[in-house]
Amino acid sequence: MTTRDDCVALDASDELALIRDEFILADSMIYLDGNSLGPVSKAARSRVSETIDEEWAEGLVRGWGRGWMDAPTRLGNRLAPLIGAVDDEVVVIDSLTIVLAKLIGGALDQREERHVVLTDVANFHSDVYIVRAVAARAGRPITVKAIERSTLDEHLSDDVALVMLTHVDYRTGEMLDLEGITKRVHDAGALMLWDFAHSTGAVPLDVSGAGVDFAAGCGYKYLNGGPGAPAFMYVRKSWQGTLRNPLPGWLGHARPFDFELEYEPAQGMQAFVTSSPSIVALAALDGALDVFDRVTMSQVRTKSLALTDLFIALVEERLSGEFEVVTPREHAKRGSQVALRHGDAYAIIQALIERNVIGDFRAPDICRFGFAPLYLRYADVYDAVEHLVAVMRSGAYGDARFAVRNAVT
Amino acid sequence: MTTRDDCVALDASDELALIRDEFILADSMIYLDGNSLGPVSKAARSRVSETIDEEWAEGLVRGWGRGWMDAPTRLGNRLAPLIGAVDDEVVVIDSLTIVLAKLIGGALDQREERHVVLTDVANFHSDVYIVRAVAARAGRPITVKAIERSTLDEHLSDDVALVMLTHVDYRTGEMLDLEGITKRVHDAGALMLWDFAHSTGAVPLDVSGAGVDFAAGCGYKYLNGGPGAPAFMYVRKSWQGTLRNPLPGWLGHARPFDFELEYEPAQGMQAFVTSSPSIVALAALDGALDVFDRVTMSQVRTKSLALTDLFIALVEERLSGEFEVVTPREHAKRGSQVALRHGDAYAIIQALIERNVIGDFRAPDICRFGFAPLYLRYADVYDAVEHLVAVMRSGAYGDARFAVRNAVT
Repeated sequence: MTTRDDCVALDASDELALIRDEFILADSMIYLDGNSLGPVSKAARSRVSETIDEEWAEGLVRGWGRGWMDAPTRLGNRLAPLIGAVDDEVVVIDSLTIVLAKLIGGALDQREERHVVLTDVANFHSDVYIVRAVAARAGRPITVKAIERSTLDEHLSDDVALVMLTHVDYRTGEMLDLEGITKRVHDAGALMLWDFAHSTGAVPLDVSGAGVDFAAGCGYKYLNGGPGAPAFMYVRKSWQGTLRNPLPGWLGHARPFDFELEYEPAQGMQAFVTSSPSIVALAALDGALDVFDRVTMSQVRTKSLALTDLFIALVEERLSGEFEVVTPREHAKRGSQVALRHGDAYAIIQALIERNVIGDFRAPDICRFGFAPLYLRYADVYDAVEHLVAVMRSGAYGDARFAVRNAVT
Repeated sequence: MTTRDDCVALDASDELALIRDEFILADSMIYLDGNSLGPVSKAARSRVSETIDEEWAEGLVRGWGRGWMDAPTRLGNRLAPLIGAVDDEVVVIDSLTIVLAKLIGGALDQREERHVVLTDVANFHSDVYIVRAVAARAGRPITVKAIERSTLDEHLSDDVALVMLTHVDYRTGEMLDLEGITKRVHDAGALMLWDFAHSTGAVPLDVSGAGVDFAAGCGYKYLNGGPGAPAFMYVRKSWQGTLRNPLPGWLGHARPFDFELEYEPAQGMQAFVTSSPSIVALAALDGALDVFDRVTMSQVRTKSLALTDLFIALVEERLSGEFEVVTPREHAKRGSQVALRHGDAYAIIQALIERNVIGDFRAPDICRFGFAPLYLRYADVYDAVEHLVAVMRSGAYGDARFAVRNAVT
């Protein structure tokens, strides 16, 4: 049996242990929801203050000439190594769904002779809404098929223009084969768009090595950029200059201050910027990225797998047979979360939240726990399972069973 | 002749004078660029701190159940009175161009038998880019005509689906006839979309009285919401439930936490929310709106006209014949800025900026000065003209004449 002392010992030798000090996190809380919203880092907090008190208050409109204009591409370059991209392949803008709309619209223009888009029936619902909405305005009839992803190969006909998948399943935590799927999609002559919402900052990604065409992700989960933080958008260098931004705006113009009535896209990723981005929102994400300068994604991944392995082992030791572990055991197929299935999942999560163990519920029967290696301790994992055991033994979760499901998670 | 003492006396009796204390503004600067970027208010600053230190740091993901989810519509309701809208007709989201894309796309679907969109050849270029881009994906051939706005009536054929105009011209400061134009557009069976970027917070607006269908504006000019602040979107109540959001996302779903694969729009303005908005960016705008609770738009308008009248009078007294006053003298046709034409406009603005008088340049020959009544003093207007006289007399602006135009303004 794994003891709490074993976990404390793991923390003592954890090379990422000191990173936790960079975050503002109450010791009384065990936060297993960094896959939904990451916590505030000290650097995020201070970058926002600096932006308001110095750049905005003192510089006023001159801020645009002092770094604000380049903020989306500068942050893109900071973020690029986290997904294996190179300079000027990433820009930080808008929100995830808007960025997806730009990529889907642009991609469909590049395969005008094809009429099918494939996505995963288990994809996050917002991704499915936007791909259908954009496909409906592609200028030709497009069929969007939301398929079981295990059947992808049989659907990869020569009429498929685009495949859009989320790399780590938001519900089960299953991680897909980035390189293998991208290759098969390319072999079928289609384009590949990945949603990295549940991957970036938690698992190493290599878009260059995998030959990914397009990708997007959000800034508020493992990147800790704050609630509703700006999203990011990746366009492989070889597509730049060809892929058009279907939502063009003046900041993406080659010469924004010439106020020309004809749109001419800027070079590189700047072409995908539309209006002025929120500089305050970008500042929070900019600060949040500081911790990633001190770690490698390989370190992050090693600890992530150790944490999820530990959690699964403890649940099986202590709560044998009470939950179905939905997340794959195989490391290559696991993101940085663990999903446990239980008929009373909603009530169990509510009871844990009352004990200051924050996870979340995903309908109809999933308890979802995120393991963010930058601030989570092995002892936290142990204590979380202690609380889970106490909840199950007490049956206290029954009280919440019929509570109105709130909108938190 | 108007003296500085006259101006000081006007400040002494100004009922808005105390509002300036709500802003963080150096006394050494005369800021005539609030029509580009408004300054930081103390309330905006403290709302951001509160959001980071309490809501995000302590509440973490639970913030979504404690007010974040409703932030776009709650801010919309705060903003509604500034444009003459009622509750649940406004939402604060995205950026201005993205909001325009939603409105244009939605509007074109409502006039499927018509094939023309009219806009102003003098419109802000970004508005022209987005209307063309969205029209190109409308599912039928649409011609976007950028016309001289004085010729609007002759272009209002029965093939016009939508007219999209900016209410106050960003370059000249001319204000259009909201009610009259909206009526003529409706008489022709077309829909009316107004861009209030240069109006909101500076001039009274009555979308209800004028029967406006759709409107949008930005949060960073006279509303002082910060660089790249979220935009707002107005949809007349009678259009809600009919107008579709062409960029749908999960937060606009009727039941976002049921994770349904079929999109069903929420009631009211929530349907136009796409992804999670930046809560930190919304917080800055939320705080910035506080000052508007203490003033009426009629007070703001009265002082705005007094300031621009004073500026025009001083320029004519002191610099007779040196500038062409481009902005209309007629109050009904004037926004809250004054544009002066001069062949050396760029160099003159640079020389003023060196003297801490911040205005901006608009190609090819416009010096543009914004007069924000909430923090500008009559004495500031006097002093600004003193500096302008000094610049013109010294000829010092000649040094900057060939400088590379920077991207500040």
